Amino acid sequence: MLEKKTTEFLEVLSSKEPVPGGGGASAAVGAFAAALGMMVASLTEGKKTYAAVEEEILCAKDRLKEIRDRLVHLADEDARAFEPLSKAYGLPRTTEEEQKVREEVMEEALKEASLVPLTIMETVLESMAELEVLEEKGSRLAVSDAGVGILFAQAALEGASLNVLINTKMMKDRETAGHYEQRAAELIREGRQRKDRIYERVLKKLQ
Amino acid sequence: MLEKKTTEFLEVLSSKEPVPGGGGASAAVGAFAAALGMMVASLTEGKKTYAAVEEEILCAKDRLKEIRDRLVHLADEDARAFEPLSKAYGLPRTTEEEQKVREEVMEEALKEASLVPLTIMETVLESMAELEVLEEKGSRLAVSDAGVGILFAQAALEGASLNVLINTKMMKDRETAGHYEQRAAELIREGRQRKDRIYERVLKKLQ
Repeated sequence: MLEKKTTEFLEVLSSKEPVPGGGGASAAVGAFAAALGMMVASLTEGKKTYAAVEEEILCAKDRLKEIRDRLVHLADEDARAFEPLSKAYGLPRTTEEEQKVREEVMEEALKEASLVPLTIMETVLESMAELEVLEEKGSRLAVSDAGVGILFAQAALEGASLNVLINTKMMKDRETAGHYEQRAAELIREGRQRKDRIYERVLKKLQ
Repeated sequence: MLEKKTTEFLEVLSSKEPVPGGGGASAAVGAFAAALGMMVASLTEGKKTYAAVEEEILCAKDRLKEIRDRLVHLADEDARAFEPLSKAYGLPRTTEEEQKVREEVMEEALKEASLVPLTIMETVLESMAELEVLEEKGSRLAVSDAGVGILFAQAALEGASLNVLINTKMMKDRETAGHYEQRAAELIREGRQRKDRIYERVLKKLQ
């Protein structure tokens, strides 16, 4: 299954091509997390034992599908955002005027390259709320899948944050850079709280 | 990129098909981690600044390629190990003899289904040593990718462990189950130490 379908993605990820890199891979792992939540929902729906929560489960599944598809799209966005940055590096910088132009173009490109992983982070955090519903109310038989989902979501969140930082680090506009970094730190904190809570409950259910 | 190549895997992961589930997805995320390490190596090799460590980098890259390919194979192994378990569930259990047979077949299938994620864990842990080499000696420009790799590796490790636990939980042979669970806990501990150390250094380099 995996052998046929993701080997090609793994090949380009391994290569010296700068994209896909950590940003796109984080979006992909976030999409895996959402997909695992959907799997828990799929294994719960239609079961008599869970009839009382069926509507909630289906609602979470719909949201996760939408989040998953957005993350797949964001993986591509991340690759696209790298292009202007790569071009900016190549701009001439002999004259003072050229240096000024290059710096401006670079600054704009760095902002964009920071904003995409920040959006990936916001999107992954959304998935965690749905994963919590599924861990709490979904089929007990699939509780480990909900647990894997929440672990992946937090890794995707922290992974994307490194891609925010590598870009903000080089920004001249320190105020904007600071805002982005602060937002990334907040999102990690929120995610970590939810992840710790869910993971602990999953481990208890598996005892 | 991602849109074309992994959407199909995401579709089956989201479905009510029990495999691929959290076990196979953990192997896949472990393969992503190894691929990111290879990418760091690919971005380092041939660069003058890193000529002194070139051999070490190439050696780590070779090992990661081998680990990545083993993980892709283990994702499929995990799916295969589920089959006998699924069949065992379906065995008749009317007579006492039937119950005894079913229990024995089930026990064997549970052992196998625990051993595959345990092997995934051992394999992912191997990749972490190589990721550390790349974080320490690889191109500074790709340090965020090494960081994402180590985050993914730990998530894969803990994710696979939940798939050990969901199987050992049902085993009648509590001594063997206990051994497996202890081994999984050890591997998580080792991984966490390495991950914390590397992640902290990556964050410092990104300051």
